[in-house]
Amino acid sequence: MAFLCLTLTYRTTIVPTDLQCVAKVAHRESAILDAVKQVIARPTGSVDDLVRLAQADMAGVDALIVARMQSPVPTIPALADHLVAAGGKRLRPLLTVAANRMAGGRDDHCLKLAAAVEFIHTATLLHDDVVDGSQLRRGKVAAHLIWGGASSVLVGDFLFARAFELMVETGSLRALDILAKASGVIAEGEVMQLTRSHDLNLDQATYIEIIRAKTAELFAAAAEAGAVAAGASDRHVAALREYGLCLGLAFQLTDDALDYGGVTETLGKNAGDDFREGKMTLPLILAAARSGAREAPFWERVIGRLEQGESDFRRAREIVVGAGALEATLNLAFDYAEQARLALQMFPDNDWRRALEELTSFAVSRAA
Amino acid sequence: MAFLCLTLTYRTTIVPTDLQCVAKVAHRESAILDAVKQVIARPTGSVDDLVRLAQADMAGVDALIVARMQSPVPTIPALADHLVAAGGKRLRPLLTVAANRMAGGRDDHCLKLAAAVEFIHTATLLHDDVVDGSQLRRGKVAAHLIWGGASSVLVGDFLFARAFELMVETGSLRALDILAKASGVIAEGEVMQLTRSHDLNLDQATYIEIIRAKTAELFAAAAEAGAVAAGASDRHVAALREYGLCLGLAFQLTDDALDYGGVTETLGKNAGDDFREGKMTLPLILAAARSGAREAPFWERVIGRLEQGESDFRRAREIVVGAGALEATLNLAFDYAEQARLALQMFPDNDWRRALEELTSFAVSRAA
Repeated sequence: MAFLCLTLTYRTTIVPTDLQCVAKVAHRESAILDAVKQVIARPTGSVDDLVRLAQADMAGVDALIVARMQSPVPTIPALADHLVAAGGKRLRPLLTVAANRMAGGRDDHCLKLAAAVEFIHTATLLHDDVVDGSQLRRGKVAAHLIWGGASSVLVGDFLFARAFELMVETGSLRALDILAKASGVIAEGEVMQLTRSHDLNLDQATYIEIIRAKTAELFAAAAEAGAVAAGASDRHVAALREYGLCLGLAFQLTDDALDYGGVTETLGKNAGDDFREGKMTLPLILAAARSGAREAPFWERVIGRLEQGESDFRRAREIVVGAGALEATLNLAFDYAEQARLALQMFPDNDWRRALEELTSFAVSRAA
Repeated sequence: MAFLCLTLTYRTTIVPTDLQCVAKVAHRESAILDAVKQVIARPTGSVDDLVRLAQADMAGVDALIVARMQSPVPTIPALADHLVAAGGKRLRPLLTVAANRMAGGRDDHCLKLAAAVEFIHTATLLHDDVVDGSQLRRGKVAAHLIWGGASSVLVGDFLFARAFELMVETGSLRALDILAKASGVIAEGEVMQLTRSHDLNLDQATYIEIIRAKTAELFAAAAEAGAVAAGASDRHVAALREYGLCLGLAFQLTDDALDYGGVTETLGKNAGDDFREGKMTLPLILAAARSGAREAPFWERVIGRLEQGESDFRRAREIVVGAGALEATLNLAFDYAEQARLALQMFPDNDWRRALEELTSFAVSRAA
């Protein structure tokens, strides 16, 4: 069982690391699910403090979002509202507002930047769901299944354009530059992921590069733009960018783990979606590497050729859990969350800082 | 033949306006094609003078385009280059440069704006071809048929982001605002067209509204941004915007006519594409309205339900030509081209102005 030595140092030892033991429970779905739940049940962080602190500002952001997604073409607000009303936690605009306020921002420019960030995010989601053929988004039927892929693409374009209009209104060329560059990086990350989708040779370093671009960059830019709008020092701007980047990585890695460990109702998407799309995420990358030649034909069939049967997701999950790949993924997420927390140390100890620190725990502790 | 009275005043009377005469030639494809060619063969304008004047500037624009579509993700430059290398006339960036120079612009900011305009246009083409399922673009196989729709969507997003990066570099918030707003309007126009695609009740006014948004707005914004970057007076900026808008309408209407009158080799797309997609363009709108109850079941079948057989495009073209709809469309294009020309009157008579005037003739005289 040499490959087990390759797993990262475990912080918990709840998952059976003995493969023989795993083999015994291999066909008992409930035992596997229990193991998964225990891995995922980390000390809970919460986003509540941050939401409370930013309440008034976020009400302004919400009002901007609703006002600026309007159009005389009825399909546009209808489709946009489908996603926007479904909510989500608005983490990215929350980050813009929080970074701005913690860095001493007092005016309302950050609200427009925050709404712009949410529009960029929503546009990305719309295009992603078309690209991936996803069925669910934020617990609702994906927009392209209702209005068609064409409308989803075009409404995404519309929201992207509106994002830039909002940014122009703030008059901050620097914030515009940050978010324009981030938008390009996100698209690069998406294309990179798409072209390596069924590629069993994808390694961990390349995967981190992909999610840094497609997910973490917007978290980073959201926080950075907020700090810039507050007129923060370069040192503080860089620290908040670092915070956003590491937080984004922690979030994405936790999401990747949840796809193998969560249940559909709490995810707002179908558990196993990544697997069914043949997406190489870290749990799969590690499981494939660690399960060696014995499981190679299985991975080649279900991911390489995307020939999947009814029970294949269950089997993949068994291998992922058994190989310690789920835990290793969560441990890495934990490391990034810690790195994010450390980036805040240069700021004075106040409510905003504490709430942003708490957010790093929340990122890695969402319940299965 | 009451409906014939409804056609616009013809400037040429080459097409047989007597339906009995049309009926005689109805099944002789060559006769129809001859008629079409004569309608389209208007006095020729040329883009050559403009291209010559702008040569040095456009070399700079081309260099920017090539440099800024690069990415470490190989699919991105490969796919972008497929479209960019195919060229086209780069009319929109040419407009930015020409408007800038005619309005007294001397620095290189307009080159970046021009490259940004071309990126926005290219992004729109990529998304359009996915939305429409088009087979050909600029005489080459459409990118989504080579790299897949997903890559086309994402590379479009990438180019859109790069467009905004370029604009930020010019430091002109006003130009940014113009092009951000234009991008939103284009998306609105596209959605409007999509939702009215097979709608036989679409009227001329609504159709003009659609093409004003989806096509003419970028021509208008391209010229306007160029003028703004030159520090032109509000009056001159407004005139150049008007020029671009009318020129764009003239171009689109001529394109619509060519789809029923052109041949594939010179169009760079398949003649009849609009018809086969059930797209309600002006020739079809007018033909359907003018051919009355007799042809209603035909239009309902081929456009409303999109049930088309081998010979249906030929028959549609016969009705379009016979009803004077092709000529009426070209006449309207001619009117807009004239309006564009008039918008230039406030500028001093110089080489730039004459070349832009010539461009209005070119817009409506592209050979079939």
